[in-house]
Amino acid sequence: MLSDAMKSYQQRVDNVLRHHIENLDDAAPRLKAAMSHGALLGGKRIRPFLVYSIGEILSVPLPTLDNLAAAIECIHAYSLIHDDLPAMDDDALRRGQPTVHIAFDEASAILAGDALQTLAFDIISQPIDGLTPQQQLSIVGLLAKASGYQGMCGGQAIDLSATNQRIELARLTELHNKKTGALISCAVEMALIAANASQDEHQALMHYAHQIGLAFQVQDDILDITSSTEELGKPQGSDEQSNKSTFPRLLGLEGAKATSQQLVDEALSVLTKLPYNTQLIADFARYIIARRL
Amino acid sequence: MLSDAMKSYQQRVDNVLRHHIENLDDAAPRLKAAMSHGALLGGKRIRPFLVYSIGEILSVPLPTLDNLAAAIECIHAYSLIHDDLPAMDDDALRRGQPTVHIAFDEASAILAGDALQTLAFDIISQPIDGLTPQQQLSIVGLLAKASGYQGMCGGQAIDLSATNQRIELARLTELHNKKTGALISCAVEMALIAANASQDEHQALMHYAHQIGLAFQVQDDILDITSSTEELGKPQGSDEQSNKSTFPRLLGLEGAKATSQQLVDEALSVLTKLPYNTQLIADFARYIIARRL
Repeated sequence: MLSDAMKSYQQRVDNVLRHHIENLDDAAPRLKAAMSHGALLGGKRIRPFLVYSIGEILSVPLPTLDNLAAAIECIHAYSLIHDDLPAMDDDALRRGQPTVHIAFDEASAILAGDALQTLAFDIISQPIDGLTPQQQLSIVGLLAKASGYQGMCGGQAIDLSATNQRIELARLTELHNKKTGALISCAVEMALIAANASQDEHQALMHYAHQIGLAFQVQDDILDITSSTEELGKPQGSDEQSNKSTFPRLLGLEGAKATSQQLVDEALSVLTKLPYNTQLIADFARYIIARRL
Repeated sequence: MLSDAMKSYQQRVDNVLRHHIENLDDAAPRLKAAMSHGALLGGKRIRPFLVYSIGEILSVPLPTLDNLAAAIECIHAYSLIHDDLPAMDDDALRRGQPTVHIAFDEASAILAGDALQTLAFDIISQPIDGLTPQQQLSIVGLLAKASGYQGMCGGQAIDLSATNQRIELARLTELHNKKTGALISCAVEMALIAANASQDEHQALMHYAHQIGLAFQVQDDILDITSSTEELGKPQGSDEQSNKSTFPRLLGLEGAKATSQQLVDEALSVLTKLPYNTQLIADFARYIIARRL
């Protein structure tokens, strides 16, 4: 069942992350605590789920996937810490907890984000059973491209420049393809590289990744309007308040819901082309737009 | 001559860095400009100098070293951008130019630092003539360890926690071994890995790196007291003002000068053990404590 699998992968990646962070020496205890706070206090672990679930479909042993899943979650965690800073989105609450610069201080939050990004690349470069150095090096490059200027960082920069401006749907889509989509696609592609997947598998599953990545963001925008602060674990309506362009704003609430449904329908139709049991990732695609947080 | 070699390597790495940054697309022009500002407006390029000069001594072709030199300079540039932020050292001037958060804004400075860190790992993972994937992957791991919690980030965290406190010499040394020394040692070790150096070469040159890394920081502390703001390109006496522990404070100015001389003397004596022409890096060690900025 999807919820069992999500919980199991979540616990698995949390253990790997905890192992890597706790294994750091105690020379800078406040920084270490800030890194733990940012990386280990909850989260749905969407990207690790994709690494593990796609990897398992393609017969990659779970231990081979552990460091890939942990590394991509380090990147995601670092991005949340920095996005929450006063100079960026200025959020005090995340997952119902104080954000890192609130629980610690701004300098610690900047450094914790920096060190979590570095830890991601450290983790991928460690010996991984079942992968060749060439595969690992490809994954380093993939993660760097997905998270840097060409991907997540670039998306966040476009997002900041678009605040207080009405932007077109094409630009909003580009923004989210970079800001959120690139890392979701990267999670899937990491598993494809680990599996030495065929070109057909690559094409189908990257298409799936692209569709659910965008659906994920549309649903986030919808939830920002329709959920309570308690459900979200952060202030409800914060996108509205910070005057950001969102899918519901450009398409209307019903239009946004229809769009996310279409994206997921296409993701599901792609999966039918694969000669594997894809029940779990099909359910996951449906979950993306059914979730309440 | 040292100054010719420094200038030549400086121009070489600047060209490589410029190539990598200018080749980025124009989706986020403000972020790209902030990255250029942080990475391309001057700097002595100490770390690239070490990559190139040690690599050449060990017969590694310069093109093989280009991406290694550029990557380590990306890491150094990102660290300066973040260290200058208001929540960290709060510096408005760097190399006689406004710092990135002054020339742009804080959010752009945070993102530019983030994206330059990512670019470093992107650059090392690209195909490099003359290196095996295993060598490149080792260099990824090396750079991550030198720049993350165990190295530079950890050192900066210790530095922040030590502000307004008098710390012991051993703790100050540990701080600078991490904050500055780790990346200087990393530059040398990158070249050693690229050269498949012998254990003897490794031991001697890493000892050299360790000595000049610490001497570099001692000299920085001395210059903060003895140079003018104009010479430094940043406010003179800023360490004093921010109430940081420094080597001159713990050892006296003459004591600090004697220490840096001892460190360099030992670095020079190590070089005599190597069956190579080490004139250039010997001169570089002397320069470390003779420089005025």
